[in-house]
Amino acid sequence: MTLHQVTIGDLPTEAGALIPDVTIAYQQWGTLRINDDGTNNLILVEHALTGDTNVAEWWGPLLGPGKALDTDAWCIICTNVIGGCQGSTGPGSPHPDGGRWGSRFPAVSIRDQVTAEKMLLDALSITRVHAVLGGSMGGARTLEWALMFPEMLDTACVMAVSARASAWQIGIQSAQISAIVRDPHWHGGDFYETGSSPDAGLAAARRIAHLTYRGEQELEERFGARPQHGENPLGPYRDPSQRFGVDSYLQYQGQKLVERFDAGSYVTLSEAMNRHDIGRGRGGLNKALASCTVPTMIVGVDTDILYPYHQQEHLSRNIGNLLGIARIVSPVGHDAFLAEFRQMDRILRRFLILSVLTEEEHEDGYII
Amino acid sequence: MTLHQVTIGDLPTEAGALIPDVTIAYQQWGTLRINDDGTNNLILVEHALTGDTNVAEWWGPLLGPGKALDTDAWCIICTNVIGGCQGSTGPGSPHPDGGRWGSRFPAVSIRDQVTAEKMLLDALSITRVHAVLGGSMGGARTLEWALMFPEMLDTACVMAVSARASAWQIGIQSAQISAIVRDPHWHGGDFYETGSSPDAGLAAARRIAHLTYRGEQELEERFGARPQHGENPLGPYRDPSQRFGVDSYLQYQGQKLVERFDAGSYVTLSEAMNRHDIGRGRGGLNKALASCTVPTMIVGVDTDILYPYHQQEHLSRNIGNLLGIARIVSPVGHDAFLAEFRQMDRILRRFLILSVLTEEEHEDGYII
Repeated sequence: MTLHQVTIGDLPTEAGALIPDVTIAYQQWGTLRINDDGTNNLILVEHALTGDTNVAEWWGPLLGPGKALDTDAWCIICTNVIGGCQGSTGPGSPHPDGGRWGSRFPAVSIRDQVTAEKMLLDALSITRVHAVLGGSMGGARTLEWALMFPEMLDTACVMAVSARASAWQIGIQSAQISAIVRDPHWHGGDFYETGSSPDAGLAAARRIAHLTYRGEQELEERFGARPQHGENPLGPYRDPSQRFGVDSYLQYQGQKLVERFDAGSYVTLSEAMNRHDIGRGRGGLNKALASCTVPTMIVGVDTDILYPYHQQEHLSRNIGNLLGIARIVSPVGHDAFLAEFRQMDRILRRFLILSVLTEEEHEDGYII
Repeated sequence: MTLHQVTIGDLPTEAGALIPDVTIAYQQWGTLRINDDGTNNLILVEHALTGDTNVAEWWGPLLGPGKALDTDAWCIICTNVIGGCQGSTGPGSPHPDGGRWGSRFPAVSIRDQVTAEKMLLDALSITRVHAVLGGSMGGARTLEWALMFPEMLDTACVMAVSARASAWQIGIQSAQISAIVRDPHWHGGDFYETGSSPDAGLAAARRIAHLTYRGEQELEERFGARPQHGENPLGPYRDPSQRFGVDSYLQYQGQKLVERFDAGSYVTLSEAMNRHDIGRGRGGLNKALASCTVPTMIVGVDTDILYPYHQQEHLSRNIGNLLGIARIVSPVGHDAFLAEFRQMDRILRRFLILSVLTEEEHEDGYII
């Protein structure tokens, strides 16, 4: 699927900086159809922190003709987040004054991400969205969409996220940022033209992150305390070349990310997650949630340690217009929304059925 | 209380190395009394990974005259673990051939830690222990005590630990080791005479560890997403000097550890936790547990993400001689055994009552 790139103009950030001449990348599946009453068949899918526009890759079993996100019925658009590195403007992009943005790239908030996405829709002359949905950072964006542009949305589906960053999340995300910025190749964020990059730091950050994305039970199923094939982690001296299987796996996850992701974007987007707080400037969390008029479904994972299920219960209890709540039961942890396709299929189909019911028909639809 | 240091001789490690001329440090409270039948009033308290012999400091409300660990009734001994840095031989100790041990210090297992402790008791001519107890790494040592020297123990109390390292634990502990060894001041473990030390790496390791020791709920209670006093983490550019409160707290925790702990010991002891596996050479976990003849109480914390409660349920269901199981209910997480003193007081008192009951009297004592 083609990666489109659209210039959306200058983005003023929530904290008062300006990002001139922003480009937002997106991919599209299916055809946009506008109904007589102005509604349409557009579903905006929001990717997670290191995700990208290619929904067909990371949600393959859920996207396509006849699938939950049925591309015969719906027009699916997924944009790369501002601050990212897969087509949209981010710290690794060329700066208008020359060189790369690097440390000159401002802090962006989840709201800035949504603003950029709204500007893209403006540029595409799209004035309405049937549904916004996403998990983790994508869930945070979805929630902000519902609060920032309620008049544009028919429905929303917020997965595996909270109303604002918890202290624990800020702590673990800051530990990841710290792993990157302590890498001597970081150069204060301006490594792009030095010929090297903070790969070890980024891999270390991913390793920490991965242990918050994946549940203890799932890792146990897969690795237990087994040695990596052909290695002996129990020798008389500690030897980094002799590893447990899980250690090898986590190193591989780090390496894979280094090959496809920019350390500057990782820092920028982690910082955005630290700043996630729907209550800011809206009278606090619960007042902000109560003000939500968009019918919203909340989805959580029972074993999520990054966004524990009680945070989704908090959302569902306080949100102004609850469409339903669904709990994914899985040993996988946070990443279950990217892995438990059977349950996700059921949840997305149910969400899309509820999303087109009239208000009267909703009455009995709360429990999924 | 005086820190005693005793030379216990050469320690052959489980993996086949030799540590010559080992010193083990310990502190003692109360007076050792030996009964006519050879039993005595000795309680061996096992400290956690960065703990030390000073039980009065880290378990203050539980140790002293009239307290749960009543020093009028019991003789309490706490030894510093081999590989540590608070009086016992470890990587920072002088090597017999000159310089510090550094990278020459072998890998030690939990069993090696227990062997060293047993050698200390031999050196003190102590042949019997009424109770061994401890949490986390101290719980791992307690469990190995019960399996390695059952004939010496009357009872054991194993807290906040598992039968072996889980994949998740190995993953997160290896991430901490990695943070230290990536510090340019680590020098392959031989930093001791370079005039610098891997402080940033050790602080980073502690920061990660702390987030596994402390529950998400407790950090939320204390910090939420509040800024550190006088700082603004929401400015237009990411600025490490402008922090959230939790970030400042975690940096402080890292700094505190750097001031009191050796990076070489941290690596050695984390590696020991990676190797924790009571099933090794004993026909697997459950066979090893079933073979346990020492009456053992198991204690866990409901919100522990490092050693989740189901791991203590596994211990209690499979251990050969269960004295009881107790669940600490707390937002604190893993560290609850070092923080929830009211509950710990109750648990330790109950344990010590059960520990002196006859076998017939035990029959009704299973549920605490």
